[in-house]
Amino acid sequence: MREINLDIYKNLRREVDESWINLHPIQRGGILPPETRETLLSFADGYSVCDYCLEGRVDLVKKPPIFDFADDVAKFLNMDEVNFTPGARGAKNAIFKAITEPGDMVVIDSLAHYTTYIAAELNGLKIVEVPHSGYPEFKIKADDYAVKIDEVKRETGELPASVLLTHADYRYGNLAEAAAVGKIAKSYGVPFILNAAYTAGVMPVDGKKLQADFLVGSGHKSWAASGPIGILATTYEFADKVFRTSTIKGPWSGRAFAKKEVFLFGCPPVFGAPIATLMASFPHVVGRVKRWEEEVEKIRWLVKELERIKDFHQLGERPRRHTLVSFETPSFHRVAKKHERRGFFLHEELKKRKISGIHPGMTKLIKLNTYGLNRDQLQKVADAFHEIARSYDIGVE
Amino acid sequence: MREINLDIYKNLRREVDESWINLHPIQRGGILPPETRETLLSFADGYSVCDYCLEGRVDLVKKPPIFDFADDVAKFLNMDEVNFTPGARGAKNAIFKAITEPGDMVVIDSLAHYTTYIAAELNGLKIVEVPHSGYPEFKIKADDYAVKIDEVKRETGELPASVLLTHADYRYGNLAEAAAVGKIAKSYGVPFILNAAYTAGVMPVDGKKLQADFLVGSGHKSWAASGPIGILATTYEFADKVFRTSTIKGPWSGRAFAKKEVFLFGCPPVFGAPIATLMASFPHVVGRVKRWEEEVEKIRWLVKELERIKDFHQLGERPRRHTLVSFETPSFHRVAKKHERRGFFLHEELKKRKISGIHPGMTKLIKLNTYGLNRDQLQKVADAFHEIARSYDIGVE
Repeated sequence: MREINLDIYKNLRREVDESWINLHPIQRGGILPPETRETLLSFADGYSVCDYCLEGRVDLVKKPPIFDFADDVAKFLNMDEVNFTPGARGAKNAIFKAITEPGDMVVIDSLAHYTTYIAAELNGLKIVEVPHSGYPEFKIKADDYAVKIDEVKRETGELPASVLLTHADYRYGNLAEAAAVGKIAKSYGVPFILNAAYTAGVMPVDGKKLQADFLVGSGHKSWAASGPIGILATTYEFADKVFRTSTIKGPWSGRAFAKKEVFLFGCPPVFGAPIATLMASFPHVVGRVKRWEEEVEKIRWLVKELERIKDFHQLGERPRRHTLVSFETPSFHRVAKKHERRGFFLHEELKKRKISGIHPGMTKLIKLNTYGLNRDQLQKVADAFHEIARSYDIGVE
Repeated sequence: MREINLDIYKNLRREVDESWINLHPIQRGGILPPETRETLLSFADGYSVCDYCLEGRVDLVKKPPIFDFADDVAKFLNMDEVNFTPGARGAKNAIFKAITEPGDMVVIDSLAHYTTYIAAELNGLKIVEVPHSGYPEFKIKADDYAVKIDEVKRETGELPASVLLTHADYRYGNLAEAAAVGKIAKSYGVPFILNAAYTAGVMPVDGKKLQADFLVGSGHKSWAASGPIGILATTYEFADKVFRTSTIKGPWSGRAFAKKEVFLFGCPPVFGAPIATLMASFPHVVGRVKRWEEEVEKIRWLVKELERIKDFHQLGERPRRHTLVSFETPSFHRVAKKHERRGFFLHEELKKRKISGIHPGMTKLIKLNTYGLNRDQLQKVADAFHEIARSYDIGVE
């Protein structure tokens, strides 16, 4: 065997522990509550939820109650059927596999997560982007979906195979007009996929009200789960299609796998830690979405505080309707240009104060998420930014 | 919201804890050593390994040392490049996506895991099965790969797009002649995929020696990881193909994702618990594969002990070269037919003795895995089976 230094894998620990204030935009919704950490340890081993698997599929396991859970998640999202996937990306891929053919057109918002583009690429789809309004709000207009659907119809003679909307985008945290897009999609009869990776699990989301044919969620992003695990919710109309079972047959052996869902890899690979933690956190999640308004108030407060710093401008829609937010920060960027640590100075200044989550090296535009932080913690964040600004002679109002 | 009973998700715990003797065929290689449980807790949150992600891809993260780790796993397997996937199934799917076209033929062994069939179905492939020798050994003959490759060539005018061999099969735990199949594949110039889900991580596997173009492993099955996580190892020759990056471009936005690996969903969804535990267990895994011969000795001992029970016959090759084993057990099946608990009686008798892992309801054929159990534990297993047999008037020699 070629030489390996095994010491670097011993005593692996994460530096950012609970004593830090973590603002990482993708991490806030995926922090496990204490009770889920206990469950995680209990189900730590690889196939831990398979002790009493009778049917060869993880979503049909009754002990622990995954079978009931899939149904309860469907109720919670007001959809008809749910299964789990290796990440929200896995859900989008499964949906495209089920309802499109290579060469088909799909209409997506231009703020979509990169995995939406990759899922389209994986399935040989052509994408049409609904534009956003550009600087500084970057908003998606629902009516532009109708414009793009008409365009596709005019150019190809056919409707797009699907339209996809990102409910809250990863970049500006804008909350899209999902109900309006759902209505437009319905009026054309085009299946509507709502990517709720940043919304379902942190705020109330009602799939039927939004007329979603498919609702995609992310356990590790927004359901306090130790993923990776995605949630694929759909209606009775599409369930048979997207959850269709295998039809392949061994030509010599005659082997067949009639229980296995083909677009979900047979038995979805979410057994063990992902599904166990998603279940354990469910009561916490059901409770917390009711407190979304408080979360919105807190981010609005922080935006006000950070905009007291010279040349800090919040990007995206105003006022905030989501806890993920971007700022352009040219004053900090000017500091970075002359600083010996360049763009890393900000990350390092925050690190000294045990505040993490601002992308290392970034000072032109910063992105953060306050979901679940309390007012004391946010005060500390505001104080830290003000202090750093002043220490580099940047004015604070 | 429709009514949900949240109480069933509170205090979720696994019944089968460390005080049990677990014989579950798919679980033995995925049990976390104590040091990895500590790491799991530290990296419990969703995107926990992304604190210092600079390049937007989990395998390029340097802290924790995932970047080094991918290289070290390649060394350990004697392959050139490695990345991680949502389960071994995800690796097989990515490989088929990269090196086949819909309608292509692939030659697989008739003992392949169902996910091999599903991966073929997902990619629109036609499968040709290499037969096994049938009852009682169910062996795959390496030379039959040449026969089937010739058959494909004769019938279609072309070589198959790939041949796949299951190194140790899920059913009988037969250890296939991988080197011989590798040699045949090489002589025809057909890419050779070795599914090492039940071998790499528990026993020594040398990819170059076996002439594997692709080696597929399973972290939760055989690398003591809290998955789901798969290992996709390949050679320089195929790395660019299977790890090729995205080329899609937003037609309006111009957005592109040149760093993201398209067949791996961009950034492979293995962040957090899966990759953290796979790393933490790596020193343990590197050590344990050297003790494979002891593991083989132990299973041979148990086979001898269980075959003392009337009508217990080990299936698959003899003597054992793997710790996963099946027995036909008609004597127990006769008991089940008259028992009020039917086939569940055996599972329940074992449960009383805190022995788990025999499929609930099965008595005609039972399957178990002894990997990592010590001699005392195996003695208890043998004693339990003997005791149960005698209590139902089944002879024990």
